[in-house]
Amino acid sequence: MATTTNSSVRPTAILLASCPDQPGIVAAISQFLYENSGNIVDVDQHVDVDEKTFFMRIEWEVVTFGIARESIAAALAPIATQFSMEWQLHFSDVKPRAALFVTRENHCLYNLLSRYENGELNLDIPLIISNRDELKDAADRFEIPFHHLPITKENKAEQEAKTISLMHDHGCEMGILAKYMQILSSQLVDAFPHKIINIHHSFLPAFPGARPYHSAFERGVKIIGATSHYVTEDLDEGPIIAQGVAPVSHRDSVKDFIRKGRDLEQNILSRAVWLHINRRTLVAGNKTVVFG
Amino acid sequence: MATTTNSSVRPTAILLASCPDQPGIVAAISQFLYENSGNIVDVDQHVDVDEKTFFMRIEWEVVTFGIARESIAAALAPIATQFSMEWQLHFSDVKPRAALFVTRENHCLYNLLSRYENGELNLDIPLIISNRDELKDAADRFEIPFHHLPITKENKAEQEAKTISLMHDHGCEMGILAKYMQILSSQLVDAFPHKIINIHHSFLPAFPGARPYHSAFERGVKIIGATSHYVTEDLDEGPIIAQGVAPVSHRDSVKDFIRKGRDLEQNILSRAVWLHINRRTLVAGNKTVVFG
Amino acid sequence: MATTTNSSVRPTAILLASCPDQPGIVAAISQFLYENSGNIVDVDQHVDVDEKTFFMRIEWEVVTFGIARESIAAALAPIATQFSMEWQLHFSDVKPRAALFVTRENHCLYNLLSRYENGELNLDIPLIISNRDELKDAADRFEIPFHHLPITKENKAEQEAKTISLMHDHGCEMGILAKYMQILSSQLVDAFPHKIINIHHSFLPAFPGARPYHSAFERGVKIIGATSHYVTEDLDEGPIIAQGVAPVSHRDSVKDFIRKGRDLEQNILSRAVWLHINRRTLVAGNKTVVFG
Amino acid sequence: MATTTNSSVRPTAILLASCPDQPGIVAAISQFLYENSGNIVDVDQHVDVDEKTFFMRIEWEVVTFGIARESIAAALAPIATQFSMEWQLHFSDVKPRAALFVTRENHCLYNLLSRYENGELNLDIPLIISNRDELKDAADRFEIPFHHLPITKENKAEQEAKTISLMHDHGCEMGILAKYMQILSSQLVDAFPHKIINIHHSFLPAFPGARPYHSAFERGVKIIGATSHYVTEDLDEGPIIAQGVAPVSHRDSVKDFIRKGRDLEQNILSRAVWLHINRRTLVAGNKTVVFG
Repeated sequence: MATTTNSSVRPTAILLASCPDQPGIVAAISQFLYENSGNIVDVDQHVDVDEKTFFMRIEWEVVTFGIARESIAAALAPIATQFSMEWQLHFSDVKPRAALFVTRENHCLYNLLSRYENGELNLDIPLIISNRDELKDAADRFEIPFHHLPITKENKAEQEAKTISLMHDHGCEMGILAKYMQILSSQLVDAFPHKIINIHHSFLPAFPGARPYHSAFERGVKIIGATSHYVTEDLDEGPIIAQGVAPVSHRDSVKDFIRKGRDLEQNILSRAVWLHINRRTLVAGNKTVVFG
Repeated sequence: MATTTNSSVRPTAILLASCPDQPGIVAAISQFLYENSGNIVDVDQHVDVDEKTFFMRIEWEVVTFGIARESIAAALAPIATQFSMEWQLHFSDVKPRAALFVTRENHCLYNLLSRYENGELNLDIPLIISNRDELKDAADRFEIPFHHLPITKENKAEQEAKTISLMHDHGCEMGILAKYMQILSSQLVDAFPHKIINIHHSFLPAFPGARPYHSAFERGVKIIGATSHYVTEDLDEGPIIAQGVAPVSHRDSVKDFIRKGRDLEQNILSRAVWLHINRRTLVAGNKTVVFG
Repeated sequence: MATTTNSSVRPTAILLASCPDQPGIVAAISQFLYENSGNIVDVDQHVDVDEKTFFMRIEWEVVTFGIARESIAAALAPIATQFSMEWQLHFSDVKPRAALFVTRENHCLYNLLSRYENGELNLDIPLIISNRDELKDAADRFEIPFHHLPITKENKAEQEAKTISLMHDHGCEMGILAKYMQILSSQLVDAFPHKIINIHHSFLPAFPGARPYHSAFERGVKIIGATSHYVTEDLDEGPIIAQGVAPVSHRDSVKDFIRKGRDLEQNILSRAVWLHINRRTLVAGNKTVVFG
Repeated sequence: MATTTNSSVRPTAILLASCPDQPGIVAAISQFLYENSGNIVDVDQHVDVDEKTFFMRIEWEVVTFGIARESIAAALAPIATQFSMEWQLHFSDVKPRAALFVTRENHCLYNLLSRYENGELNLDIPLIISNRDELKDAADRFEIPFHHLPITKENKAEQEAKTISLMHDHGCEMGILAKYMQILSSQLVDAFPHKIINIHHSFLPAFPGARPYHSAFERGVKIIGATSHYVTEDLDEGPIIAQGVAPVSHRDSVKDFIRKGRDLEQNILSRAVWLHINRRTLVAGNKTVVFG
């Protein structure tokens, strides 16, 4: 897998872990880091008392650490085994590669590309995939390869298989649905479990499905919302990463709802992406722990 | 009906009207006020383009008006007829009388009573009705008669009939459900159509019904809400007057949701009551026009 | 002046007016429109009771109106004179032309261009002006002429004169400072009074001047903000059009403040521009009336 | 000092600590708790990278702990000394006692008393102190002793000395200024350093001093705020604990600002009090670390 290096920040190792809650976890991890001269940059923990589950994110400097980068995972393994941890180890200077999915609306795309260009999002975007071609020009402008994969009932399985291949070929570990107006089948979802982020244009679980602004308008709500979540097989039911809201009034038409909603959609999606690629999210059942 | 006079503000007449949208409405009303030396204090209008309906709230000083208070309605009637208006005429110095309904939680009650005492809410509260007796002491403290009307399946119709009588006897034109944990039947709702205000502890239409904080917690939302609405026969489906939200995180338990939700509930209910008694709300189908 | 026509919406005339409050204004205007078959699409009014000033925005369809577009101003003049109005008449199908000013940060620029491309902002952007050249590539991408006018103490007057010429040559009636990190002198401000919109990265009047995020961090605030305002000669003191806020915590560094602030800056600036070009703002002294 | 016991929750010990950042702190504390069978309920940490300071809040069950309650402080002392910690040890079943200070406005008082009565605030309120007598009736209603201590320039030192005595006599460790419209002198502030919480009715540092709503109205802001902070000798300059905001428009008068501001004031003050008495705040210089 091709990765690029972000040399402008001092690289860190990030451990994301969860396990059954039990005494000694923090002591074991912190002792391990202390003994190996780990300079802790950030640490956050959470205990889900109902589920008796422990969650942790700990970040420490790589260069000054007593264990070489390539040996850290092996050194951590015994602790992980002892406490029955599910864990991920990441390095801040290894940029995740993401495929962007779009349809016709450009606002989430531009918001992501702006942040990408100004260095706010530590990721690589090797390709844009779309079921339509309206945003090809936009992709060309930013010199990102654009793949037009129109979807019909007949070709859906085939096009999704092609999508998976493209993502693998480009070393993509994740996908970002930036107003991609197609439902993913389990084939694609399962290929990237909890690695595909969607933005839904309502305050879920209110107004799931299509045309949520129209539904919100019909209901006469006074606040609209947007929800970013991991994609699962159950439409609009995946673990929520971030939500945002904006006030509306009787003066606002559906068109105004849509206009005001765009502000939410682009910011909430970009926030969720930022949280994910900075390894600040852990999925627990159908919820997220977000070390924000 | 017994009413009290708020002499500290210059009294105004308030016309709330809606009708099919058509040319000449504003001209007719404003000409009528101009010809009778009406000193307009506030005016707000709205056209629902889809429904082709016109809404208006206009407020003018009574004392300097060329038509005596008791003759205004008759003078307005021809215009109202001409444009097929539904209309209400109110006077700011006639305080509406409201029955408060509570169960066990005190926060909405205290919030309303604080505003009542400090003069923010221009209403009278001649009685508190409850299906339980936990808040009798609180009512006693504020010297407001407390009526304990416990509800069972068997006595519900009877107790609601008693409630209606009590409200009529005390000259109440409206009811405020300040965390009243009982569903009203159509008997009571129909006696005060669009005159009973409820606070629901969720961001409707998400999480209707009972235990919304528990449902919100289960779903893993990142924002909770509260909704104040007019009570209709369809539970939690009435026209929304006001909504509010607050952020939550994985650190918040259901108990924290409930605690944080109280802030929303009390403020949103009091805001809805303020809007209603200042004659700033118009119901249109299942929505509200709120001249806030 | 070159203008373009937005044929996709039914064109309207928009009257923005303010005058000393007095009886009969609404009657006169609404009578005028009624007599000439004006189909009112939207109307909003406000009376500043302290200042005894009346404000109005009224919008009606042009095509069905009884007075030809080019004769409306003359027909309105007598009413305007009678009530000593300050007034502006606009047509929704005449797009304002705006010069964009940028320095190095791209987020406000991209946000505006996204909205411009998707038709949300009814304006033309014939040029981008910058005191630096970092965003030339971005301008090129969107094929908008880029003018690099670096500013020194010595050449400031000259460069601003050039700026004014450029704006006049391109038919620009307004300027948008999309993170333009230069203080405008009165020469430039006076050439476009209340026609240049700035975004300041703080919740004014807190933290005026440079480096507001650093000041906010130093003070230990729990909420940060952004403010969009008309540029006046008094730096950061112009009439406020829109403000937005976001929560921060002790976990946020100055860098995080800046990152979170970008969300606010781009949305608040774009909202202010939207309000201005839809002729929804009126300046009154050092405040705005915003018919939002 | 008289304290009461809240037996309804399982008691916890809470360590709040800060020290120069250095390796091994977390390892030492977590090892200490692990060796003594400490069942950690909640833990939160923060490193201020600029100031190189480490902050921690850790909460564990008392009953199952291997060290008796009265011996915990002594057992912790060596670790505290080793890392040069400033630290506080609290027990959740020891309710802090607070003096409430009021003047004329009742909303913050009622909000606190509602939460106090419903058990949300784990504190005791043995007395209310006021420079005026308007709220004596309210205090009587809730059967809380009311002390009327009017302040003049001449008697200020004397009355504050009396205040300090009263607070000591009633075992008060803290004060809550619930719209107390008097500036405290250093005599009183120094007697309870970072133990007196104020609510200021603006979004500090905007509009410090008196009449902030009037100033905000004059400036034409579109959002108002409220700020709760620890009282220090520098007026309105103390460490901020919590802030809140609400939108306003040109339609809002100063009176509306005040009305809308009350919602903020009462909720923000109560939130700050909740954070403080749950030992979730640490003061660092002129800022707070809030483990919310």
